[in-house]
Amino acid sequence: MNNFIYRNPTELIFGKGQLSKLAEKVEAYGRKILLVYGGGSIKRFGLYDKVMSILGEHGCQVAELAGVEPNPRLSTVQKGIELCRQQQIDWILAVGGGSVIDAAKAVAVGVPYDGDVWDFYTRKAAARDALPLGTILTLAATGSEMNRGSVITNWETKEKYGAGTTFPAFSILDPEHTYSVPRDQTVYGICDMLSHVFEQYFSHTPEIPLQTRIAEGIMLTVIENAERVLADPEDYDARANLMYCGTMALNGTLAMGVETDWATHSIEHAVSAVYDIPHGGGLSIIFPNWMKYVYRENVSRFKQFAERVWQVDPAGKSDEEVALEGIARTRAFFDRIGAPSRLQEYEIGDEQLDLMADKAVPYGPIGRFKQLKVDDVREILIQSL
Amino acid sequence: MNNFIYRNPTELIFGKGQLSKLAEKVEAYGRKILLVYGGGSIKRFGLYDKVMSILGEHGCQVAELAGVEPNPRLSTVQKGIELCRQQQIDWILAVGGGSVIDAAKAVAVGVPYDGDVWDFYTRKAAARDALPLGTILTLAATGSEMNRGSVITNWETKEKYGAGTTFPAFSILDPEHTYSVPRDQTVYGICDMLSHVFEQYFSHTPEIPLQTRIAEGIMLTVIENAERVLADPEDYDARANLMYCGTMALNGTLAMGVETDWATHSIEHAVSAVYDIPHGGGLSIIFPNWMKYVYRENVSRFKQFAERVWQVDPAGKSDEEVALEGIARTRAFFDRIGAPSRLQEYEIGDEQLDLMADKAVPYGPIGRFKQLKVDDVREILIQSL
Repeated sequence: MNNFIYRNPTELIFGKGQLSKLAEKVEAYGRKILLVYGGGSIKRFGLYDKVMSILGEHGCQVAELAGVEPNPRLSTVQKGIELCRQQQIDWILAVGGGSVIDAAKAVAVGVPYDGDVWDFYTRKAAARDALPLGTILTLAATGSEMNRGSVITNWETKEKYGAGTTFPAFSILDPEHTYSVPRDQTVYGICDMLSHVFEQYFSHTPEIPLQTRIAEGIMLTVIENAERVLADPEDYDARANLMYCGTMALNGTLAMGVETDWATHSIEHAVSAVYDIPHGGGLSIIFPNWMKYVYRENVSRFKQFAERVWQVDPAGKSDEEVALEGIARTRAFFDRIGAPSRLQEYEIGDEQLDLMADKAVPYGPIGRFKQLKVDDVREILIQSL
Repeated sequence: MNNFIYRNPTELIFGKGQLSKLAEKVEAYGRKILLVYGGGSIKRFGLYDKVMSILGEHGCQVAELAGVEPNPRLSTVQKGIELCRQQQIDWILAVGGGSVIDAAKAVAVGVPYDGDVWDFYTRKAAARDALPLGTILTLAATGSEMNRGSVITNWETKEKYGAGTTFPAFSILDPEHTYSVPRDQTVYGICDMLSHVFEQYFSHTPEIPLQTRIAEGIMLTVIENAERVLADPEDYDARANLMYCGTMALNGTLAMGVETDWATHSIEHAVSAVYDIPHGGGLSIIFPNWMKYVYRENVSRFKQFAERVWQVDPAGKSDEEVALEGIARTRAFFDRIGAPSRLQEYEIGDEQLDLMADKAVPYGPIGRFKQLKVDDVREILIQSL
């Protein structure tokens, strides 16, 4: 196990009807609130009205940053920062999925910062102060509700980068708020959370038996519950298990003492920055190809993955055959839930291959399971076309 | 899964040489420090000198509360509170195992409280404010380094109770600090952390697949590493795995959305309050007897425990036989590592049986896997004699 420092102060408020806890947060953080949300699904399904009703009852003054994009844009974040400054906002309430929360985090750290908030994403500065942020999660996927990560896209430069920003002070996770998530978004969320586990599970760090078992536990639980949710979108327990897994997959637990990878996320961010495709869809295409490209670096880890997560029977097979069968079953699972397998499904050809490969490797080689240079990324992208 | 609220702000600073991080904590929390420790092993093994040297270099003024008992006493806590008030202490640094940390927590919440600190333990008041607390853990066992629990013994009334007090602001966990832990203390620590998992694993809450797998992962990892540590007390990785498991077993993760039990801890506290025996030793005696007394409440849970944790082969056996074999293997494991199996090993007979049973049930029935009344506790104690 490697040395590590772990701290995660987010208060997780999980379960049916927990929205009612919002009232006490108004008392704690103040009455001038910026409400951040996306394309309006929270209005269609009644959540917006419920939130506004609680805030109204408690005498809150609410400004709105609506229309946050699925790959949230720097220009939207800048609009939010301006709003907060003009209206002297006390705290920010994000209602939505990872994109909405990521945008809200960027606003939260941008408000007290003198320079351009994009500095945090290009590593020119590190975020320190932030407005308090609360979230009401409506999509099980990114884990952003319980970590300090944020991913923003700059459309002027076609760059999509992540930064460490600020932990939500609290996050309200009611699985019922995910009942109305459309099938494709549910699938993307499943791909996203599994990918977060992959990024941390495929590691060369020795002596991490518990971290490994927790990762395997999350993968098994996501796999078991994925098809339940797709069969019955209002299966409370299946939605709850997925939502809990999404949070646990990226709240820092799996990274304790573990060297993690994250190359595949860099590659997907590059694709999304050029073509604006759904993050989870991109991951489901690229991850199995990354696995095939890198598994020889540690065949026994991939063999364990095959046996413990996919129940591959190793009898009569070489280690490499077992490892490859695990990768094939990963691909087959993504197929079974209807996740995309080729970039051409998003009408992406080889025209911008070099641009995407360059953007994936902005600060030198990526990944630690296998260090990838531009040519490696190019090869993985070609396999993904 | 049940509704839950989870929040754990403790900063975990884990690994070799992490003691050096203490310097920055002095900058953060101040220079008037109460150092809390136990019977002096930290002096024998050099840790005291290292800590004092760092604090000295940074101009700290250090008061000491030394000699905290294995079952820490209210009178010691009261002495610490007095010291803090007299010397206007900024924060508390506990160096030791769970007892030292529990005493330090009691001092931390006692200082700003007008009444008697024992009120928190008898449920007359709830702790709110606290002095900041840092810990340097020297024993993998209680998990107190990353939770807000504290257990204190009142020798005047022969009562040993737990209370929610305050989270450590930070905890430094260097597995090398546990190299010098004697064999019997190492064994008690292993019994204690396994017991913490048992208290949360044996639950009737449906649909907790991930929490279940994390609990099983901790148990498997503790079992694998226990004999390694006993064979070679300076096996870094085995010590690190145990230390990490001890923390994860009781930092709130396993209780997320789960109805937990804790009857066995109440029974052990009653025994310790009357006879002052080691907590881990008491648990290793009582837990298998609790299991035998309650397993019929949910045979399938005990069957799963037997199969997943102890690899019991269910072929040709009834569910009940599988469940009982899991309990027998638990007992056999405790025997194998040299943990006690009968109260008579501590020269405890049936003389005070009624007193112990009464003290175990101070506020009505205990436990939620099976609610236990005084007669039930008496029966479990008789089986444990």
